[in-house]
Amino acid sequence: MTKKFNFDVTATDGRARTGVITTSRGDIRTPAFMPVGTAATVKAMLPESVRATGADILLGNTYHLMLRPTAERIARLGGLHRFMNWERPILTDSGGFQVMSLAGLRKLTEEGVTFKSHIDGSRHALTPERSVEIQALLGSDIVMAFDECTPYPADEATARRSMELSMRWARRSRDAFGDRPGHALFGIQQGSIYRDQRAESAEKLREIGFDGYAVGGLAVGEGQEMMFSVLDYAPEMLPADKPRYLMGVGKPDDIVGAVERGIDMMDCVLPSRSGRTGQAFTRFGVVNIRNARHQDDPRPLDEQCTCPACRNYSRAYLHHVNRAQEIIASMLLTWHNLHYFQELMQGLRDAIAEGRLAGFVADFHALRAGGDIDPL
Amino acid sequence: MTKKFNFDVTATDGRARTGVITTSRGDIRTPAFMPVGTAATVKAMLPESVRATGADILLGNTYHLMLRPTAERIARLGGLHRFMNWERPILTDSGGFQVMSLAGLRKLTEEGVTFKSHIDGSRHALTPERSVEIQALLGSDIVMAFDECTPYPADEATARRSMELSMRWARRSRDAFGDRPGHALFGIQQGSIYRDQRAESAEKLREIGFDGYAVGGLAVGEGQEMMFSVLDYAPEMLPADKPRYLMGVGKPDDIVGAVERGIDMMDCVLPSRSGRTGQAFTRFGVVNIRNARHQDDPRPLDEQCTCPACRNYSRAYLHHVNRAQEIIASMLLTWHNLHYFQELMQGLRDAIAEGRLAGFVADFHALRAGGDIDPL
Ligand SMILES: [Zn+2]
Ligand SMILES: [Zn+2]
Repeated sequence: MTKKFNFDVTATDGRARTGVITTSRGDIRTPAFMPVGTAATVKAMLPESVRATGADILLGNTYHLMLRPTAERIARLGGLHRFMNWERPILTDSGGFQVMSLAGLRKLTEEGVTFKSHIDGSRHALTPERSVEIQALLGSDIVMAFDECTPYPADEATARRSMELSMRWARRSRDAFGDRPGHALFGIQQGSIYRDQRAESAEKLREIGFDGYAVGGLAVGEGQEMMFSVLDYAPEMLPADKPRYLMGVGKPDDIVGAVERGIDMMDCVLPSRSGRTGQAFTRFGVVNIRNARHQDDPRPLDEQCTCPACRNYSRAYLHHVNRAQEIIASMLLTWHNLHYFQELMQGLRDAIAEGRLAGFVADFHALRAGGDIDPL
Repeated sequence: MTKKFNFDVTATDGRARTGVITTSRGDIRTPAFMPVGTAATVKAMLPESVRATGADILLGNTYHLMLRPTAERIARLGGLHRFMNWERPILTDSGGFQVMSLAGLRKLTEEGVTFKSHIDGSRHALTPERSVEIQALLGSDIVMAFDECTPYPADEATARRSMELSMRWARRSRDAFGDRPGHALFGIQQGSIYRDQRAESAEKLREIGFDGYAVGGLAVGEGQEMMFSVLDYAPEMLPADKPRYLMGVGKPDDIVGAVERGIDMMDCVLPSRSGRTGQAFTRFGVVNIRNARHQDDPRPLDEQCTCPACRNYSRAYLHHVNRAQEIIASMLLTWHNLHYFQELMQGLRDAIAEGRLAGFVADFHALRAGGDIDPL
């Protein structure tokens, strides 16, 4: 009855792969972009609209949900899928990244992390065991091991101490997870920008054995060039027959570069957050809809885009509702951005399947280099 | 090609009427409730969702739109319908009510009103001629005459001066409107709580001749009892073969009482505004979703309601996203409230058509008297 978690690579093009992750809640086409549903909602979107953009899977945040409404409450209410009306797969992060970001409000030990809630200042603890328990209470389909996201920059010794702690926590996460048919546990590679540490981390994770592997500790301020230089070797250290997940990435050109380097899954708040601040992603780059150049422009954001924002509204309208701080501005721009990201993923999947990724990427960059359409 | 503006009363029950207003942009079933789309959006709703609740017509605000994005800009962009992606009928107010509310920022003369924008302090003027011109630029299907909404309370002499000014402005509005096939101009009855002044105002309006008539100067703080006492005589002073519109009303029990007294059209920000502050209207009265009693409640707001908020989400979820100040809270509660208001209108229409309005109204009050479902 419960479908086995499985990953099939159906085609490769250079280091890039396309395939399908099978879960008991539906398939995930890879490379996959996961919209972020922090507090049990992808901000400004109904879940059926998120699905309409082409998303196969959402990401939920353990840190936010454990504080409000709490994992136990969500479990009593039937789990996160039912709670937020999203019946397809959900990946939850471990909470580690957000907790570590609470500088001054958290304390790290071998056991785990204690911290104060940003909502009401109450004290909480996260350990590998508790993080995995929370993710199970939420009903997550893909559970992430609890780790320390090594900050950037970190010197070799600091990076090593952090990586080794994460590997001990990976072991404890695996033990705590146990055997849950239809659910997957992903390990997270650390090692900062040090190739030997990345290799050692990958080796440790393979020994423990996971259903998928994340490349962690990137997209934390190191810049695209440095991130790509790590992605030139780090993903290949991980098992080729398991999904590789790059956490918290990213901008469209980050995504394209990561997919070229063998990444299968990504997540980022960028399309939804940008939608709420008037930034739209199009084939031609970023459009700031607040700019006065749009106030009389009857054209859509992108005439080729089939999202509701582009089918039904002018740039002038989007400009107006953004300036007037109307909720519909966030709704429409978020929808467009998520649509654009998913269309980009479909383009990448098709290009890999047809062995023409290099051409697709060249076109992608050439269109962006041309910039937005000229003002009228 | 352009359909004539027309009103057919198809059934009456006591003073209550049901019927259909025909316009070139579609029919309006009466009694009709018009959601308010102040700044070219019904807040937190896509227009197709507003339609899905059963709305036949929206209200747009001249005051807000003339300031931003301006009537001339909307006209250049093809009119308000295309601008906001609502192809069905739109009624626009005259701007008078909002302008008169700008105490200290406006100056009233025989000619009209000058005022300062609440957005940037710039100076503007509204006259009967300019108001009608703006509403024509917007492409409004139902244009409201420019009037002074007499404040409450007003002594007889003050009310009379105000009413007589509004009647002179009604004449000027009529002259400015001219002949616009397929578009309607509504006059507005004033006279505060004074029956003889209401009669005199109605008489003046009938002499001028309009396509519909509003009962103005109510729902301005006089209370439901006083409002109903005026509605016991004021609507019947207006032509029976034209729509009667009660402006800015109201709460569900205000609506029911107004329909009982012969009103055909209403508008109010209440369902959308309440949706943004966690207030939900149900058959059992008002539910404050912020209340902690809902935090573990797996039941929908109203198990009989077929709106997305009730079909897909628990009270616990609605409570959570409201507390977390997520946009989806406004989206779902506004949708539910608009759905409830439209369902109430459909219930009233059916009851009038079938001659059982008294029973419908008794049931309406009895259900509300029982209050919300018990906590679990
Ligand atoms: Zn679009
Ligand atoms: Zn509902």
